Amino acid sequence: MHAYRSHTCAALTAANVGETVRLSGWVHRVRDHGGVLFIDLRDHYGITQVIADGDSPVFAELEKVRSEWCIRIDGDVLARDPGLVNPNLPTGEIEVFIRDLEVLGRAGELPLMVFGDQEYPEETRLRYRYLDLRREAMQRNMTLRSDVVASMRRRMWDKGFREYQTPIITASSPEGARDFLVPSRLHPGKFYALPQAPQQFKQLIMVSGFDKYFQIAPCFRDEDPRADRSPTDFYQLDMEMSFVTQQDVFDTIAPVLADVFEEFGGGRKVDAPQDWPQIAYADAAKWYGTDKPDLRNPIKMQDCSEHFRGSGFAIFAKLLEQEGTEIRAIPAPTGGSRKFCDRMNAFAQKEGLPGMGYIFWRAADNGEMEAAGPLAKNIGPERTEAIRQQLGLGVGDAAFFLGGKPKSFEKVAGKARDVIGAELGLTENDRFAFAWIVDFPIYERDEETGEIDFEHNPFSMPQGGMEALNGDPMAVRGFQYDLACNGYELVSGAIRNHKPEIMLKAFELAGYGAGEVKARFGALFNAFHFGAPPHGGCAAGIDRIVMLLADTANIREVIMFPMNQRAEDLMMAAPSDPTSDQLMELGLRVIPRD
Amino acid sequence: MHAYRSHTCAALTAANVGETVRLSGWVHRVRDHGGVLFIDLRDHYGITQVIADGDSPVFAELEKVRSEWCIRIDGDVLARDPGLVNPNLPTGEIEVFIRDLEVLGRAGELPLMVFGDQEYPEETRLRYRYLDLRREAMQRNMTLRSDVVASMRRRMWDKGFREYQTPIITASSPEGARDFLVPSRLHPGKFYALPQAPQQFKQLIMVSGFDKYFQIAPCFRDEDPRADRSPTDFYQLDMEMSFVTQQDVFDTIAPVLADVFEEFGGGRKVDAPQDWPQIAYADAAKWYGTDKPDLRNPIKMQDCSEHFRGSGFAIFAKLLEQEGTEIRAIPAPTGGSRKFCDRMNAFAQKEGLPGMGYIFWRAADNGEMEAAGPLAKNIGPERTEAIRQQLGLGVGDAAFFLGGKPKSFEKVAGKARDVIGAELGLTENDRFAFAWIVDFPIYERDEETGEIDFEHNPFSMPQGGMEALNGDPMAVRGFQYDLACNGYELVSGAIRNHKPEIMLKAFELAGYGAGEVKARFGALFNAFHFGAPPHGGCAAGIDRIVMLLADTANIREVIMFPMNQRAEDLMMAAPSDPTSDQLMELGLRVIPRD
Repeated sequence: MHAYRSHTCAALTAANVGETVRLSGWVHRVRDHGGVLFIDLRDHYGITQVIADGDSPVFAELEKVRSEWCIRIDGDVLARDPGLVNPNLPTGEIEVFIRDLEVLGRAGELPLMVFGDQEYPEETRLRYRYLDLRREAMQRNMTLRSDVVASMRRRMWDKGFREYQTPIITASSPEGARDFLVPSRLHPGKFYALPQAPQQFKQLIMVSGFDKYFQIAPCFRDEDPRADRSPTDFYQLDMEMSFVTQQDVFDTIAPVLADVFEEFGGGRKVDAPQDWPQIAYADAAKWYGTDKPDLRNPIKMQDCSEHFRGSGFAIFAKLLEQEGTEIRAIPAPTGGSRKFCDRMNAFAQKEGLPGMGYIFWRAADNGEMEAAGPLAKNIGPERTEAIRQQLGLGVGDAAFFLGGKPKSFEKVAGKARDVIGAELGLTENDRFAFAWIVDFPIYERDEETGEIDFEHNPFSMPQGGMEALNGDPMAVRGFQYDLACNGYELVSGAIRNHKPEIMLKAFELAGYGAGEVKARFGALFNAFHFGAPPHGGCAAGIDRIVMLLADTANIREVIMFPMNQRAEDLMMAAPSDPTSDQLMELGLRVIPRD
Repeated sequence: MHAYRSHTCAALTAANVGETVRLSGWVHRVRDHGGVLFIDLRDHYGITQVIADGDSPVFAELEKVRSEWCIRIDGDVLARDPGLVNPNLPTGEIEVFIRDLEVLGRAGELPLMVFGDQEYPEETRLRYRYLDLRREAMQRNMTLRSDVVASMRRRMWDKGFREYQTPIITASSPEGARDFLVPSRLHPGKFYALPQAPQQFKQLIMVSGFDKYFQIAPCFRDEDPRADRSPTDFYQLDMEMSFVTQQDVFDTIAPVLADVFEEFGGGRKVDAPQDWPQIAYADAAKWYGTDKPDLRNPIKMQDCSEHFRGSGFAIFAKLLEQEGTEIRAIPAPTGGSRKFCDRMNAFAQKEGLPGMGYIFWRAADNGEMEAAGPLAKNIGPERTEAIRQQLGLGVGDAAFFLGGKPKSFEKVAGKARDVIGAELGLTENDRFAFAWIVDFPIYERDEETGEIDFEHNPFSMPQGGMEALNGDPMAVRGFQYDLACNGYELVSGAIRNHKPEIMLKAFELAGYGAGEVKARFGALFNAFHFGAPPHGGCAAGIDRIVMLLADTANIREVIMFPMNQRAEDLMMAAPSDPTSDQLMELGLRVIPRD
C-alpha cells in the first residue's frame, strides 16, 4: 500500500465497504462519545469520518490526537446505519474504523481554529496564513482564483493568442504610479525598476510582429495601501493585438470575460456581450456621476437645468447664472416618501454638499397626484409637472436635484444614485452588468495652473489623429476605453498611438519636449521608426474579477499570501533590515531617520 | 471590409482566386522586375506575394516602399502560372495584384535586416530587439517557448495540479544565491527581496492543505552573468505535492517532461520515463565525473586501482599509497589509435592535469592483439590484459587513466568522457537521454576549515530521519534528486524535512543554532508546528528546456527581451540613475564611487 494514502478523504462511498484503506489528512474535529472517538479527517478534497473504540489497537494513541494534527490512519470501511447517513457529504454513506495510526505532524495550541466560522483579526489571519488558508472559505477562494486564471488562459489560446513573458527586472517607466526600484549590484548606484504594467513591452511585441499577445502579468506599483488594492504586486490579464480597431478589441475580450463570469458566477445573471452598451465618458459622468457606473441600477440622471432657470427656487436660479453650471436630477422611482427623501438629503450633507433638493409625488386626499417638498412649492406646479414628465415619474416616486459645476457634485451624485438604487431595491443584486466606457478625453486641464496634461495614459491614439491634435486639445478624444462592471473598472485599454510624429505632437501638447519623450519612452519611440503596425489592447484586473466572483470587497481574501495594509508580510517578516554587506555590494547607504 | 485585413498573409490559396482581398504586413523583400514590382508581404502567420505594374493605380506610391515598412494593400487574388507555383509556401499558388495601398508605418534605414540569414553582433540584436524578433528563427523560438509553457501547464492540470501564484515582492531568504533587494518606501531603510524561488511559499502552500501546487514561476537571482544563465530573472516549472514519496514525484513529473520533449522535440528520440535510470550521486561522479551526465554517451568510467597498485607504473603506484586516491579508467571503444590517444592526452593537459595515461589495443603484424602505449609497457602484459577484460575492450579500442583523489580529476574526467564520446561518434545526437540522480549527500565538509555545511539545500529530509542525523553527518543522504538530460541539470527537487525537531537538528549539524533557523526560516519553522504534512516536489528549468528543444546554447535566443551579459537592457536602457526624489523617498543615498 502507498506510504500515505490509498484514497483521498473525498473518495470513499458505499462501494468501498469492506475494504481496508489508508487515509492521510488533518484532524478537523474530534468528538468523544463515551468510549467511541469520532474524528472528521480532512484533506484538500473532502472529509471522511473515521472512528475508533477500545477494540482499536491504537485507541490510546488516538485519544491524544488534537485538532489540526496531520495523521495517517489505516482502517476498514464500514457502512453507516441508514439513519446516520449524511447526504451532504460525498463520503456520508461510510465511516472508517481505525486499525493503525501514524502521527505525521503534531500541532501546538492553535491561534486560529480551522473548524467553524469564528472570525479572527486580520493580523492573526495573516501571521498564521497557513492555518487561515485551511479554512473552507479560503480553500474555495484560492481554488476559484486558480480556476479563473486557467479559464482565462484557455479562452485566450482558443482565440489565437499566445502567452509571452515580459521582463520583471527592467527599466523605470513613469506611467502614473510610483515604481518599485531594484538596485543593481553590477552597476552600483544604478537601479532597475519593476514594471507597473508590461505596457511598453507588449507594444514592442506588436512591433516585433507577433500579432496577438497575452499574459497573466504581475504588475508592480508602489502605491499607498487601500482595502481593495494590493500595496505591492497584482495581476492583470494583459493583451494586445495588431491590425485592429477598437471594436475588434471589444469583440475579442468581451466573450472571454463574459464566459468566465458565466463559468464561475454561481448562476448570477451575466449580461451578454452584444448587449454591453458603449457609453461615452462624458455621458457616463452625466448619467451616472462616474466612469465606472453600476448598471445593475436602472437610475439614469438627467439635466433639468431648464426647469430651474429663472424659477422661484432662488438658489438654483442664481447658480445657473454662472457659466458651466447645471442642475442634475436623480430620479428615484418608488422613493416617494418624505422620510426617504430626508434621509437622502442627509446623506448628501454627510458627503459634504449643502444637501439635495427633492420633489416627491403622492396621492392627495382627493385621490389626485400631488407634488410635495419645498422645491415644488418654490418653482410652482407647471415647472414641477414638466420635470415629472421629463423624468417619467408618477405617484410614489421622487427626484433629487444637485446643482453647480458638474465636477463639484458628480461624485456625490454618483454615490447618491448607488444608495438610492440599493435602498429602494432597484439594483439587481444577482447580476453582472457590463458597460464599455469610450471616448475618453486625451487631456485634462489643471484647474489651478491651467496647464494641460494627459488625462489617462500617453500611449493612446487620438481620434482624428494629427488633425485633431492641431485643433482644441481639450476636445480631443482618444481611442481609449474602460470596461465597467457593477461599479468597478475591470478593464482598461486603448488603440495605441503608433506614429512617431503623432506621438511627439501629443506629448508636445502636454508640455513634454522631444528630448523628454526619447528619454522616457525611448525604446517605444525608436521602435516606431521601423515599421510599426497599428495595434491596441487592454488589461483586465484579475484580483478584482476574482473579488467580484467571490463576492468579497477585501483583496486579501483572494490572494494566497498578501501584504497587510502597511505593506508588510507578517508571516515572512518583510520588509526587513538589509545586512551591511548587502548595502555595501549595492553601493548604498541608508539615511538615518530623525 | 475590415480596416486592415480580410485575410492573414498565410491564408490565401487557389480557392480565393478572383476575390478582392485586404492584407496587412511588413515588406519582407521587394524585387523590381522591369516595371513589375514583386513584394513578399509578411505577417506573423506567413508570406504572400503581392505584385503591381503600371496598371495599378498606386504603382508610383509602391515604388517608394522599402523593406520592413508596414503596409496595408487591397488587391485581386490571381492564380500563378503553373510554372511559378511555389510548393514550399502555403500561399504559393496565388499572388495578389495591388489596387490600393496604405502605409501604416514607415521604416528608416535598418540596423539589422529581417530578410536573410546575415549575422549581427549581439549588441545590435539586443538594442534593436524588435527587428531581431521579426526574423524567422526568433519568431520560431518565441512561439516554441510559448507553446512549451502552455503544454506544461495543460499537462500539470491534467495531473490534478492547480497553479497558485506566490508573492514576488517578499522577504529575503538566503538559499544559496544572492537576493535582489527592493527598498521599501513605506518603511524607509528596510528592504523586500525578490524570491530566488518560491521554495518556502510552496512548502507553506502544502502546510495550508492544498495538496498539489504548481506554478510557472519567475525566479530572481543576482548572479554573475554566464552565457547559459539570465543575470536577472528566469522561469521554473515549480511543483509540490503532499503525502508523497520520492518515487511519486518522479512518477508525476517524468511523463510531463517526456511528453513535452516528444511534442516539441522535432522527432528526436526521447527516452521513455520508465527507462530513466536512478543513479546515486556517488555513482554518477564515479561513472560520469559529474552529477549531470550525458547518457547519450555510452561510456561509463570504472575504478582500475587494483591493476595499478604495486605495479611498474610508479606514478600511479605511488599515488595509490595515499589515502583516498584512485585510478579511474575511461574506456574509449574505437579510439584505438596513437593519434587519438595523444590528442586526448593533450586535452587533459590543456584542462590543467599532468595528462592522461592510455593504453590502446591494435592488431600486431602477426594478426594478434597487442596493447600499445607507455602505460602498457610499464605495468606488463598481465595487468594490461586484466584491465582490458574489466573494461570489455578489444582491438581498435583504447582506455584512458586518471589518478589521484577523485575530486581532483573527476571534473576533467567528465569532460574527457564528453569529448571522447563526441569525437568517436559514440554519442547519439538526436536523442534526449534522461537520468534521475538520487541520494545526494546532505552535507559537505569544507576541505580547508573542516567545517560542515549543507551540500545543496537545507530543506531536504535526511534518509533515515533523526536517527541518521545522530550518526556520521557525512554519511547522511537526502531524499534529494536532480534530473539530468544530455549533460544538463533540468530538474532539482526533494522530499522536504517537515519535522521541526529534525529541521533543528539538521541545521545544528551545519552550525546553525535554533535562533538562526527561526530568524532565517521563521515562517516555515513556525508553520511546521501546526500539523505539517509530509511533502516534496521539484522545479524544472524552463529556459533550459526550451534551449534544448531549440538546440541553442545561448539563453538569449529563447527569451523575448533578455539582458546582455553585463545585466543591462540595451533597448530599455536599464539599469539607470534614480532621481534624487526617488532616493529621498526610499531614504537612501548612493555611495560615491572612487
